[in-house]
Amino acid sequence: MSRSDSAVTLRSVFASPAIAACFSDEVLIGGMLAFERALARAEGACGAIPETSAKCIDAALRDAPIDVETMVPEARRAGTLAIPFVKRITAHVAAIDKQASGFVHWGSTSQDVADTALVLCAKRASALLLDRWRALGNALATLCDAHRSTPVLARTLLQPATAVPFGFRVATWLDAVTRTRIALSRAADDASVIQLGGASGVLSSLGPIGADVATRLASELELGVPATPWHATRDRVARLGTELAIACQLAAKIGFDVALLMQPEIGEAFEPDGPGRGGSSALPHKRNPVGAMYAREAGLRAPGLLASLIAGSGGELERGLGQWQTQFWTLGELFAAAGSATDAMIEVIEGLRIDAGAMSRNLDATRGFVYAEALSTKLAATVGRSAAHARVESLCRLAQSGGRSLEDVLRDDAELAALVPAQAAAAMFEPSSQFGAAGVMIDRVLDAWRSEET
Amino acid sequence: MSRSDSAVTLRSVFASPAIAACFSDEVLIGGMLAFERALARAEGACGAIPETSAKCIDAALRDAPIDVETMVPEARRAGTLAIPFVKRITAHVAAIDKQASGFVHWGSTSQDVADTALVLCAKRASALLLDRWRALGNALATLCDAHRSTPVLARTLLQPATAVPFGFRVATWLDAVTRTRIALSRAADDASVIQLGGASGVLSSLGPIGADVATRLASELELGVPATPWHATRDRVARLGTELAIACQLAAKIGFDVALLMQPEIGEAFEPDGPGRGGSSALPHKRNPVGAMYAREAGLRAPGLLASLIAGSGGELERGLGQWQTQFWTLGELFAAAGSATDAMIEVIEGLRIDAGAMSRNLDATRGFVYAEALSTKLAATVGRSAAHARVESLCRLAQSGGRSLEDVLRDDAELAALVPAQAAAAMFEPSSQFGAAGVMIDRVLDAWRSEET
Amino acid sequence: MSRSDSAVTLRSVFASPAIAACFSDEVLIGGMLAFERALARAEGACGAIPETSAKCIDAALRDAPIDVETMVPEARRAGTLAIPFVKRITAHVAAIDKQASGFVHWGSTSQDVADTALVLCAKRASALLLDRWRALGNALATLCDAHRSTPVLARTLLQPATAVPFGFRVATWLDAVTRTRIALSRAADDASVIQLGGASGVLSSLGPIGADVATRLASELELGVPATPWHATRDRVARLGTELAIACQLAAKIGFDVALLMQPEIGEAFEPDGPGRGGSSALPHKRNPVGAMYAREAGLRAPGLLASLIAGSGGELERGLGQWQTQFWTLGELFAAAGSATDAMIEVIEGLRIDAGAMSRNLDATRGFVYAEALSTKLAATVGRSAAHARVESLCRLAQSGGRSLEDVLRDDAELAALVPAQAAAAMFEPSSQFGAAGVMIDRVLDAWRSEET
Amino acid sequence: MSRSDSAVTLRSVFASPAIAACFSDEVLIGGMLAFERALARAEGACGAIPETSAKCIDAALRDAPIDVETMVPEARRAGTLAIPFVKRITAHVAAIDKQASGFVHWGSTSQDVADTALVLCAKRASALLLDRWRALGNALATLCDAHRSTPVLARTLLQPATAVPFGFRVATWLDAVTRTRIALSRAADDASVIQLGGASGVLSSLGPIGADVATRLASELELGVPATPWHATRDRVARLGTELAIACQLAAKIGFDVALLMQPEIGEAFEPDGPGRGGSSALPHKRNPVGAMYAREAGLRAPGLLASLIAGSGGELERGLGQWQTQFWTLGELFAAAGSATDAMIEVIEGLRIDAGAMSRNLDATRGFVYAEALSTKLAATVGRSAAHARVESLCRLAQSGGRSLEDVLRDDAELAALVPAQAAAAMFEPSSQFGAAGVMIDRVLDAWRSEET
Repeated sequence: MSRSDSAVTLRSVFASPAIAACFSDEVLIGGMLAFERALARAEGACGAIPETSAKCIDAALRDAPIDVETMVPEARRAGTLAIPFVKRITAHVAAIDKQASGFVHWGSTSQDVADTALVLCAKRASALLLDRWRALGNALATLCDAHRSTPVLARTLLQPATAVPFGFRVATWLDAVTRTRIALSRAADDASVIQLGGASGVLSSLGPIGADVATRLASELELGVPATPWHATRDRVARLGTELAIACQLAAKIGFDVALLMQPEIGEAFEPDGPGRGGSSALPHKRNPVGAMYAREAGLRAPGLLASLIAGSGGELERGLGQWQTQFWTLGELFAAAGSATDAMIEVIEGLRIDAGAMSRNLDATRGFVYAEALSTKLAATVGRSAAHARVESLCRLAQSGGRSLEDVLRDDAELAALVPAQAAAAMFEPSSQFGAAGVMIDRVLDAWRSEET
Repeated sequence: MSRSDSAVTLRSVFASPAIAACFSDEVLIGGMLAFERALARAEGACGAIPETSAKCIDAALRDAPIDVETMVPEARRAGTLAIPFVKRITAHVAAIDKQASGFVHWGSTSQDVADTALVLCAKRASALLLDRWRALGNALATLCDAHRSTPVLARTLLQPATAVPFGFRVATWLDAVTRTRIALSRAADDASVIQLGGASGVLSSLGPIGADVATRLASELELGVPATPWHATRDRVARLGTELAIACQLAAKIGFDVALLMQPEIGEAFEPDGPGRGGSSALPHKRNPVGAMYAREAGLRAPGLLASLIAGSGGELERGLGQWQTQFWTLGELFAAAGSATDAMIEVIEGLRIDAGAMSRNLDATRGFVYAEALSTKLAATVGRSAAHARVESLCRLAQSGGRSLEDVLRDDAELAALVPAQAAAAMFEPSSQFGAAGVMIDRVLDAWRSEET
Repeated sequence: MSRSDSAVTLRSVFASPAIAACFSDEVLIGGMLAFERALARAEGACGAIPETSAKCIDAALRDAPIDVETMVPEARRAGTLAIPFVKRITAHVAAIDKQASGFVHWGSTSQDVADTALVLCAKRASALLLDRWRALGNALATLCDAHRSTPVLARTLLQPATAVPFGFRVATWLDAVTRTRIALSRAADDASVIQLGGASGVLSSLGPIGADVATRLASELELGVPATPWHATRDRVARLGTELAIACQLAAKIGFDVALLMQPEIGEAFEPDGPGRGGSSALPHKRNPVGAMYAREAGLRAPGLLASLIAGSGGELERGLGQWQTQFWTLGELFAAAGSATDAMIEVIEGLRIDAGAMSRNLDATRGFVYAEALSTKLAATVGRSAAHARVESLCRLAQSGGRSLEDVLRDDAELAALVPAQAAAAMFEPSSQFGAAGVMIDRVLDAWRSEET
Repeated sequence: MSRSDSAVTLRSVFASPAIAACFSDEVLIGGMLAFERALARAEGACGAIPETSAKCIDAALRDAPIDVETMVPEARRAGTLAIPFVKRITAHVAAIDKQASGFVHWGSTSQDVADTALVLCAKRASALLLDRWRALGNALATLCDAHRSTPVLARTLLQPATAVPFGFRVATWLDAVTRTRIALSRAADDASVIQLGGASGVLSSLGPIGADVATRLASELELGVPATPWHATRDRVARLGTELAIACQLAAKIGFDVALLMQPEIGEAFEPDGPGRGGSSALPHKRNPVGAMYAREAGLRAPGLLASLIAGSGGELERGLGQWQTQFWTLGELFAAAGSATDAMIEVIEGLRIDAGAMSRNLDATRGFVYAEALSTKLAATVGRSAAHARVESLCRLAQSGGRSLEDVLRDDAELAALVPAQAAAAMFEPSSQFGAAGVMIDRVLDAWRSEET
């Protein structure tokens, strides 16, 4: 009954199953159990609780049955999952060893276990996501390399500009992917710290050895130790969320670029085909850019989710009223969105179908206007810059009104034609003449990606 | 497995079960089935499809079994839930009547059924939420009425100001609740319209009778008919979401006010007690304002969720790439948050424990400074305003340094004491002397609430 | 020096000068003066202060010189503009009439004057914006009417769907404009209420006649009277901001639709030309969709601004710590953005150049695929729905591989050709055959707009 | 006239003048001029343009007069500031050297100069902000050190928990300040890269030496060189904005903590006094926590602003429609907000007045309940954990109902009193007995801050 909220199953259409699963009830409860076991071991090792009790707790909680359903109403009343959780695990240990049960959750507080479990979920999800971004980067690197000389019309403000290699466009994507993957990895590492402060943050019931217990606990869980508990200073989570939001935005940018190229009137690149992919319930012949749609959906949703996460990054005094809970649920949403967008774009980029012929046709269809700047630059050497600019503008007008090409009208102008002999013109009216520093840029990006990968 | 994302069960701690359930898989699929059945009936009645087929579809889909789990991967590939859904219901009808199955989903498109199902979910959730807000408003009205004369220190920027009736503070809450409930009701009504446009919005395969089919469909589903389909102009959903976000914020404001009053050093109002309510896993004697926490959590999360919803309120050309999907999932989240916050505040207000003695003590503890303005006003008539202001300031300094009350030091100042005889002073140094227009305001609010309720 | 922040002048490129001017220093200070004068008049009329003092204040403040520059550092220290403002106007009145100066700002508090001035700014800006939206709606109505029969390819998920009248697309825009203008007007009216509560909200120093003073003040300022002061329950401002954000989004949706149509490969609609309009500093031949750019800029910025506004809609107890200030600055930003977007779109729509020939060519270029659904529907009557669907799919594949039209391959298939005689096919392979209920929808929208306008 | 928008002067009350000034018209135009001059020098040095022209441009633009007012309407038409700007500087150079004017802005595009100027503004503002955060951190370090042994009641969910040193609370603030300052510094460095791509990003008119020109330009401007232009992949700006938003939130957290402690019923810490600081226009005796208010205002506004910035982090294809403009204006707002919040908190922390007596009194007022956990732990050794817990709970109830202290009722219970002799009890009922690992934590934080500073 309590499971029936929020179209649970249907929502998973808009998530990466593997990444979303990192925040499942099972995994989250698993993280809470891992915390309590590791805490007992750490406290046993430091002498904060009897070694035998520590061992008993550790063993007993290995397979403690937690009935999540029944926890919900109790948790709602208590205001935290940890209260019914600790009650259950204490009872479970007590059934085995009464004395040991007195040391369950020793010196810790609700938010310690909840936050550390969140961190464990996030660490796992981050690792998966970084793997997926490696796959995305690799696919982009291959695509970039394959098209370092394929001319395509650059488009700015959705209008044609000049010719660039398609590989350059992909390089700008990969460049951002490289940056984002590094930043995500760093943010995930920075956020991978335990939460342990006890009732008020200073580990009062553990005394000065509290710091050793924390160090040991962190080592048991393969997490870092923060200088102070972060119950009410949650900027690390905000930074991690930022990278997820940026990842969503970046995937959305790539996806929407593909969708624009896939418009049939442009037709330069296409999402992969496949049975059941991108269909329409009304129009059987239609093929929708569904990968782009998933990425865009995540990109539209992410900025707001990040705003919520940031709004929850503080908290009153030692522990606040509502902030960590807001972060808790929102971080999972951001991971799910980032996962959905990433999975979609891997599929799109790995299977992207390029129509170099269409790219070429679209360039030709500009009838040479993309070379107007180059022609003007060339003429400037002889007739001066503003005269050149004015003359080329006239040629453009002439070409446009007559439906002719710029080169064509140039040949008709005896004076200018003399300044730009046919051979020079041919070299100029050629897409690759506009590639500028594209080669250097592509190399830089591929090198950076590859060096990052090794 | 696909069900395991996002800590499904645990999340319901932060939701109103009844309201969250309006967006469950079952209810959403139920809405999709209701749409398809009503569409068939409407098309049968208008002659768009054969009456017998219409009846067959209507009957067959009454109990069509939909296996949501298996739909997910297909939906992910197709980019919409509707594709696998229509496939399944068509097959289900075909097993009964081949010909009728040809008229399933007739003239409609994926987003028609998805959006209308969303609207049906939202309408149901809105009705529940409006009921809950009635309960909240009634509880506030009772509280307001009961304390129309209970003096309490007003606090601005978290500093003491003057005395007001506690009922006035509650009236400001109720005033906003009244407005928000009306606005929510209106937004819900405005958003309760069908989506029906077919492939491109004009109902091309139905022809001109499409408009009649739409009217009939709307009437079957007890929804309104929009002038045009709203596939890519989704402002109605944005307005509904705004009211949910405002509801979260308002609940959070009331909740945080209570939490501030519940600080033991202030101790003027308390959330209700109850077994297991607001406990701490570390400190057994502690009682946390958990109702306030739930409301605040929702209040912190809502502005970001609304930003996402607004970002999804457009869409490219006839139907956009990702917008409606973003709205789809975000609207459910906003309802869940608003439900959580509302349930929490009903419990808090219905059970609020007031300590009028503490209110009185806190007023006294200001040692009369809350009356400084009144005294200054009184003296101004005789000695002029700035002289009065300066004299009262001196008295305040004197009182403060000596730990005495303002009245006390006034009595010691022969000249001023003569201007304010003991009896006049007694009347002035009395909280109710500061109630100003509170009575009128309280009456206005109670009247507005009650007239709204009838 | 203090004026030099935030690229003041350059920012006005992204604003409507007339609307932004409603929030200028001068207008805002003017609103504060209007409040203080009207307050004095109201208090004089109600007997709260001497009539002569009231008149003196009213007269003196008609032309009170306020040096805004010098106010800034004092306001920063005090935490509110009102402190240095009231100090200055009190001194100004005192220079004329010492006694009257004692009644300046009588019974009021800082936030009363600041909030009421904000409301006066917003009311003025709303009126201008509503006028601008009338102009936008009128331009859309004209465009819609002119193109109720111009066929254009509908596009969903950026892929061709079927044919619709271009006027239908415009009708969906106008429909949303109509709704948004009504909602904006209502929200502006609802928000046009005074703020008057004094130190703690109950008008303590005015006593019970405070309510009469408030009524009178509101009437003097042509604003409404709220049931209670709204210092800490600021949902009205949030609702007004929502309509501004929706207006930005809607303008962005229309603008981006135009930009998509203006891609040269599509070339169906163009922003108006004009000297200096949409140029490029690198490519002289280029024409950018700058109107769309302004609208989109506002659309991208608005959801976040609204999140800030919502986050500031509460406040602790009688008056909060930071909320109203956040709303104050954010509301002005939202108006500026909405103004920029609206101005841009009026210019775009009033001057929109339509290329009906290109629309027709793009339809033809689909080689009849847009009629596949219609053909399948027609054949279904004879061969059954799934057989029809399968046969049409084959025809589509045949046409696609051979670069032929659907009609062409249909004629080659003797059996099917017999079922769809040439004349019937001609009627079917005609855009207007797909217009469905477009005519009814267009009429509804135009009627609604026109009835709203009268 | 165009300067009159958005309450320019009054807004500066909510900004740091020095930081806001980094985005003034003058500084922004200065950055644009610096870009054009450095570009000419770089191109001269690389042989892309004649050395003499380069020198002429560099010299001429040193003092080029730019009339910002007249640029605005032209910029609005063109859709970019750069068009009228380049027109003006070209004319200015032409008046000196016709030929050189042909090489102004050579190979560059509008967004190159606009984005690089933005980066120069941001770099300057970041440096100032980092300085201010050093001051804030130093003030916190001093405060932390001074109060490493001052006991204060920890408060979680706004309820008393146990005793901690006040220095520990400050350490949690400083810990977050240390992290945020490092992250801000890194994000500012990462974002300090030039933008140079020309019309389509590949520097087509410069050819392969474009990459050298870029390197040289970057070195001239003391900025980094990105692997590819970032016209449409603007994640670096998003990351910088995140740190600003986090800075706002953190300042708001600290500020609100102070405001909570400054509630007179708690009275443990106070913002500094000062003439005109935190006054009220209604209540002359009142002192408002204005520093906290500024920080909170920024904290409430920042999440939404960040959402806008993130929404503008992409862009269609080579250059998008509206994204960079959204980032441009929003980044300045975030800096202004962060500056306002930081300035406010420096003043608050440097002048914070601590009332250790009140801290002690508030601890005493809990009548020993803060030691309940410690007592229970102590007793557990003898009577077992649950018996201990139950016995202490009874004592608490007894104490509460009788208005007595926990220690008092303990002494009355012969059995328990025997287990906790008076001396042991005295040691236990002493705040410092609860300090746990606070000392270690404080040392860690101070060490980290100090090592960061050197």
